[in-house]
Amino acid sequence: MTENKKVNIADGLSCPVPLSDYKNVLLAHGGGGKLMHDLIEKMIVPEFGNELLDDMHDGAILDINGVKIAYTTDSYVIDPLFFPGGNIGDLAVYGTVNDLSMCGAKPLYLSAGFVIEEGLPMETLYKIILSMKEAGEKAKIKIVTGDTKVVNKGKGDGIYINTSGVGVLERDVNITPSNIKAGDLILLNGDLGRHGIAVMSLREGLEFENSIESDCAPLNDIVKSLLDAGIRINCMRDLTRGGLASALNEIAKTCSMEIHIKEKKIPVREDVQGACEILGFDPLYVANEGRFVAFVNPEDAERALEIMEKDENGEGSAIIGEVIENTDYGIVTMESLIGANRIVDMLSGEQLPRIC
Amino acid sequence: MTENKKVNIADGLSCPVPLSDYKNVLLAHGGGGKLMHDLIEKMIVPEFGNELLDDMHDGAILDINGVKIAYTTDSYVIDPLFFPGGNIGDLAVYGTVNDLSMCGAKPLYLSAGFVIEEGLPMETLYKIILSMKEAGEKAKIKIVTGDTKVVNKGKGDGIYINTSGVGVLERDVNITPSNIKAGDLILLNGDLGRHGIAVMSLREGLEFENSIESDCAPLNDIVKSLLDAGIRINCMRDLTRGGLASALNEIAKTCSMEIHIKEKKIPVREDVQGACEILGFDPLYVANEGRFVAFVNPEDAERALEIMEKDENGEGSAIIGEVIENTDYGIVTMESLIGANRIVDMLSGEQLPRIC
Repeated sequence: MTENKKVNIADGLSCPVPLSDYKNVLLAHGGGGKLMHDLIEKMIVPEFGNELLDDMHDGAILDINGVKIAYTTDSYVIDPLFFPGGNIGDLAVYGTVNDLSMCGAKPLYLSAGFVIEEGLPMETLYKIILSMKEAGEKAKIKIVTGDTKVVNKGKGDGIYINTSGVGVLERDVNITPSNIKAGDLILLNGDLGRHGIAVMSLREGLEFENSIESDCAPLNDIVKSLLDAGIRINCMRDLTRGGLASALNEIAKTCSMEIHIKEKKIPVREDVQGACEILGFDPLYVANEGRFVAFVNPEDAERALEIMEKDENGEGSAIIGEVIENTDYGIVTMESLIGANRIVDMLSGEQLPRIC
Repeated sequence: MTENKKVNIADGLSCPVPLSDYKNVLLAHGGGGKLMHDLIEKMIVPEFGNELLDDMHDGAILDINGVKIAYTTDSYVIDPLFFPGGNIGDLAVYGTVNDLSMCGAKPLYLSAGFVIEEGLPMETLYKIILSMKEAGEKAKIKIVTGDTKVVNKGKGDGIYINTSGVGVLERDVNITPSNIKAGDLILLNGDLGRHGIAVMSLREGLEFENSIESDCAPLNDIVKSLLDAGIRINCMRDLTRGGLASALNEIAKTCSMEIHIKEKKIPVREDVQGACEILGFDPLYVANEGRFVAFVNPEDAERALEIMEKDENGEGSAIIGEVIENTDYGIVTMESLIGANRIVDMLSGEQLPRIC
């Protein structure tokens, strides 16, 4: 799927990433922007390449003896470990539950791999474990297999958690970027930016009058409600690293369509908007952990919106845009508050490092 | 399955691990010994607890709409990243392939989660990716989903890799410690200790006349041959962190049997034995990455041995011991080279940190 020109990087070793620019891995290579996509698409996917990985979705859909299974993984390296509204533990559970949900699957089982830095207070570890337990109960999944490694003091940052997840596709759905059609309407399940701002405020030592809490939440119930109601969903994506703008750009690129959104339809809380201005962020790019977009058949959009609004994670849901035929290449455009049209590009690096 | 007395560790927080002894996580908590098992069994399993996790096997067996699936995860934090006979990349593939194989499953799909330290040479990353690709081809699995995170310089150690794996149980087998019966014979697929010694020699700057290479290898083919031949295998376990002694202790404890082995039957290469003496290690506790034990019905043992010896990863296979009824508790005993009987205990911490 990607052009794969290799350049010589060492004795007998050719590499498809332009190492003249990036000899070493940068923080930005993990930030959800262009650099990360370059790394993944040019260096990793072509080597591991297979039709399942090529799909570039939140998870892979496996057919094992006729049963369709969604499968996904994420590592969590958030700094700090505890933030208003959550911690690395529930984040690691919800993040993977949400990736499975975005495939239209019912999340069933999770794995948990801990890389713990020597010296982490046992109390901190236990609090994280308890959060994962609670999050698992809330999301109705079971953590069934795990692994614990300890690295030397100074070779980690408290704890890193990897979760992978397995879910079952109970319906004959095909929820993937390549399924998007011109005319699809785009729904968003609530206000943007709270997770990123909650973490960054803490990191920067900012205090706001009303504490901004992460939106960190499991999305399996709201997705189930949509599917149960027969809403024709062509694609879903949760808005984590890189926020709404990056997710839409990824999708536009994969399906080669123009995605057009309207700024005035995108809910951002006033305090979050204020914090973004202080910190110099654009809420379109700020990470969320309980937000997703759904691309639905236009005839189903109003009904989908009603269903989403009724869910505890759907307050403030809105139809924020639509898909437009574009014969050239995938692109995201936005009608700004003052009515001007602009391109919403993918960031090169990242606004917020270590946000999940 | 475990006693779960909690002690107060902080305001309103009771924890089942005796924090009077261990207020912070120690390197040894990741070493495969008693401390690690304490942490996992007392702090993690009771909280995440469910019948699948309680089984304490290398992987969980899931029943998804009638299809039986093995599911497992491991994080790899080995230091150094490259060692004689392999690197963190193929280790991460083979380790998870082997865990699935130990459940009697055919490994099918892997996930890969990378936590990369800022500043890692792109060349190093690419070499690791290429090794994973090759290892995946050798083990006949597909890497179908992944994730890339970057942490700040000084907050990692080059790269940590998590892999999880999914396999299918094609046969109606029940390969688990609780299935072990008195009289079962124990087979080992070759000489012990090469992985640990290869890594430690490099770390300590030792040079041996003939370089000792890791035994790092995929075990799915040898296991398939055994199952295809109808060998009745009651349990299998690969001998990674903590080596043969720890694996047998884990199993003995879970099935409440006495496992009796004979030292003279256990193959250890002369150079590995020599290196162990220099480094002060006991090969019984040294990590391997291509070795496993199989507990088989005694009538099938000779036939199993013949099959194993024919496999490229079965050279030097041997029947090393048997299972003896023990009404009190699980224990591992060994007849030493001079004919004395001794208990082979689990180490408290670890001989070799960061070995996988």
